[in-house]
Amino acid sequence: MRINLNFDMLDEPIPLNGMTGLVIENRHIFAKLVQSIFSYTPDCMEVKFFTDRYDPLKSDEIMLVTDILGFEINSASVLKLVYGDLESQIVAAPEMSSKLENLFAEAVSLITRETLDFEPDLYIGELSLQKIFKALDIKIETCDLTIFERVSDIIRVFKYLRKKQLLIFINLGTYLTSAEMESVVEYATLQNINMLLLDNVSFCTPAKLNQYVLDEDFILTKKTVNSHCKCNSGTAT
Amino acid sequence: MRINLNFDMLDEPIPLNGMTGLVIENRHIFAKLVQSIFSYTPDCMEVKFFTDRYDPLKSDEIMLVTDILGFEINSASVLKLVYGDLESQIVAAPEMSSKLENLFAEAVSLITRETLDFEPDLYIGELSLQKIFKALDIKIETCDLTIFERVSDIIRVFKYLRKKQLLIFINLGTYLTSAEMESVVEYATLQNINMLLLDNVSFCTPAKLNQYVLDEDFILTKKTVNSHCKCNSGTAT
Amino acid sequence: MRINLNFDMLDEPIPLNGMTGLVIENRHIFAKLVQSIFSYTPDCMEVKFFTDRYDPLKSDEIMLVTDILGFEINSASVLKLVYGDLESQIVAAPEMSSKLENLFAEAVSLITRETLDFEPDLYIGELSLQKIFKALDIKIETCDLTIFERVSDIIRVFKYLRKKQLLIFINLGTYLTSAEMESVVEYATLQNINMLLLDNVSFCTPAKLNQYVLDEDFILTKKTVNSHCKCNSGTAT
Amino acid sequence: MRINLNFDMLDEPIPLNGMTGLVIENRHIFAKLVQSIFSYTPDCMEVKFFTDRYDPLKSDEIMLVTDILGFEINSASVLKLVYGDLESQIVAAPEMSSKLENLFAEAVSLITRETLDFEPDLYIGELSLQKIFKALDIKIETCDLTIFERVSDIIRVFKYLRKKQLLIFINLGTYLTSAEMESVVEYATLQNINMLLLDNVSFCTPAKLNQYVLDEDFILTKKTVNSHCKCNSGTAT
Repeated sequence: MRINLNFDMLDEPIPLNGMTGLVIENRHIFAKLVQSIFSYTPDCMEVKFFTDRYDPLKSDEIMLVTDILGFEINSASVLKLVYGDLESQIVAAPEMSSKLENLFAEAVSLITRETLDFEPDLYIGELSLQKIFKALDIKIETCDLTIFERVSDIIRVFKYLRKKQLLIFINLGTYLTSAEMESVVEYATLQNINMLLLDNVSFCTPAKLNQYVLDEDFILTKKTVNSHCKCNSGTAT
Repeated sequence: MRINLNFDMLDEPIPLNGMTGLVIENRHIFAKLVQSIFSYTPDCMEVKFFTDRYDPLKSDEIMLVTDILGFEINSASVLKLVYGDLESQIVAAPEMSSKLENLFAEAVSLITRETLDFEPDLYIGELSLQKIFKALDIKIETCDLTIFERVSDIIRVFKYLRKKQLLIFINLGTYLTSAEMESVVEYATLQNINMLLLDNVSFCTPAKLNQYVLDEDFILTKKTVNSHCKCNSGTAT
Repeated sequence: MRINLNFDMLDEPIPLNGMTGLVIENRHIFAKLVQSIFSYTPDCMEVKFFTDRYDPLKSDEIMLVTDILGFEINSASVLKLVYGDLESQIVAAPEMSSKLENLFAEAVSLITRETLDFEPDLYIGELSLQKIFKALDIKIETCDLTIFERVSDIIRVFKYLRKKQLLIFINLGTYLTSAEMESVVEYATLQNINMLLLDNVSFCTPAKLNQYVLDEDFILTKKTVNSHCKCNSGTAT
Repeated sequence: MRINLNFDMLDEPIPLNGMTGLVIENRHIFAKLVQSIFSYTPDCMEVKFFTDRYDPLKSDEIMLVTDILGFEINSASVLKLVYGDLESQIVAAPEMSSKLENLFAEAVSLITRETLDFEPDLYIGELSLQKIFKALDIKIETCDLTIFERVSDIIRVFKYLRKKQLLIFINLGTYLTSAEMESVVEYATLQNINMLLLDNVSFCTPAKLNQYVLDEDFILTKKTVNSHCKCNSGTAT
């Protein structure tokens, strides 16, 4: 799906296909836009996300990450999706599926035999794959050592949530080194997702990022890759 | 533990060891006693349950069943106890225990192999016996076809809850035929529990039940077994 | 609404209009019927409650009380109904209504003045009657001193729940003296409700109760008022 | 309380009394520090907050705001504190207090009179100030129009929570214009709180902010007020 972004400081919409960076240098405009996205609805006046057919994006098609550290990866709805998919995958492999069934049947039979001596008598239900997944506490692997790794986790989950169309990070540029940013953009590109990085300060533009800068004079320019950046932090030249 | 019951209409306490029946023919006294037991505390003035050492029973040592049909057998605390006991039993049988471990390890290994292809990467925890019990929905078998069967269920659970010292049924005599009552008292006797049946109307006294009758003139008599009863309903002769 | 009761031991349905007593002397039949009513649904085979037009009663049109002591009078749905009705009543009295409004306005104005000095600034919402009812913890008065009083409480609530068509007590006869039963039936008659008293043992029939007895030989007889009863307990003379 | 900050890139601790700004230009170091603060405990090795007596700050003495838009101002614990304080304030003013009591008494009396006609009888409890506060939905006023206003809200709440010793904002510099930042620092100074602004990019230093910059060469310098800044965005000169 091709998505576009518009708000009152732009002369024409910015296309948000693949990786897009938008640096808004004026802090007042930046803060206002972040806030509008935070409370985005399809009929929001301050900011517009819409397809090439001018259909506005629904609120739940956008995943906004303002708080990388606080973001909950394994929410209940994510887990439900994971368990359903994992079950389908196993059921689709009959040999695997029947091996597991036999193991469970044997385990249940052993436990049942053990409960024969138990007083009072016990009822024993049936095992299902989903119940085993839950018992195993299966969830999306998160390697939350660094903020950089959390970003990859979030991209992975976003990719997985098929309903979501656009992933937006705020101020991601302040947390990642040039190398890390390069790697994140590379990874997200491979995942074939639409990602918007909204920042107040420009940073080293990775090759695969279409970066726009709205400067203090409200002039929008599209940055040529690595045009003014041989740096790590990207703050000064 | 030897238990005694006293309340203001009695000249001396009634011993409640094993199976005891108490029929209170006066409905006012009957209702008052039921209500006092319903809100029993160790320092309750209206009714006294106490050991031979004059220690009052604690509230949670008494299990009062006024509502046989609504009684919840598999409460959370009962299940916790069941799972703990069942685990101990299995752990105490090393061969059984290691067989189960191997089965689980193999199942986890199969599932792990399956999740290698899964995108995003998944975390897989460990199986424990208790988690498997929960997944199997293990609980105390209840065969709730009839009120009679529910009574047996309740006795089984009471027996199992080691903290409980006294099981009291209200009006059980109105629900069970003579044969069923005989069977219930027989079963409870085998379980070696203290059970008090509190009724308003006398019923056929099973052989193993010490039945007392407090009549309309407030005279307490101990009934001789089967003295006035060759009947089913026990209402009249 | 005219209601009828049928089950397999009856030759023809028993009409349940106003006060009806049904004594089932055979304990097996009694227990079976109680259990069927406990799990009653409109397409239940074991017991039928239906109108004169042969429409079965819905499950939530019947209020079954097996556990007088444990019965919750002020449930959330009852309170919601009470608050709505009380509000309508007050709104319908304009003078009363405006007096209350003025009092609340003055109170809010005083509190608002007080919060002017408060740091940080406080938001103050508006008072509504329903919020005041909740703050006042308004609920149906329960005078739970005795089982007899609880019965009156339950009748009052039943009367108030307009959806309910039939109130059924199990074994009420064992808890109430003849005078109390007389009084309960009197009170329920005044309330103009349909009430069924289901018992295993017959008791002194109050004048306004249509009492049926299904005896051990499965013969149904309609008792003449006070025919065999000058007693208190009503078991036998 | 005088507080100090230390972490492995510093030669000596930075004192955090009053308003302190710390800009860490290296994004890797910045991200690592933010993350360490996010999971701060008193025995954390990566970052140290401690008093002049070398007592480490407890986790709940620090209020970290990474997500200005998502921050919940009126949490349950805040409201509990507000209601308690407001009650004390009113009780301390006897005239005010008795006026309110009279108003409530009159309202309760009117409602009570109204419920006399109500069937079934109703129980009416007592009003308390705290119940009225809850009914009025009293809470800390939030004027959440802009991010700037939310920051003031957060400072107000922080000031109010007496247990808290240090307020930390991450990347606040990217959201506020120079004038807004000046105003925030001014306001927080008046509130006499300890506030740390942690940023990746330097911004116009307000007069009352002690701003430190840890540059890409890991040299820490203390910025002279307004030394390199006549700008709005503060990104470059």
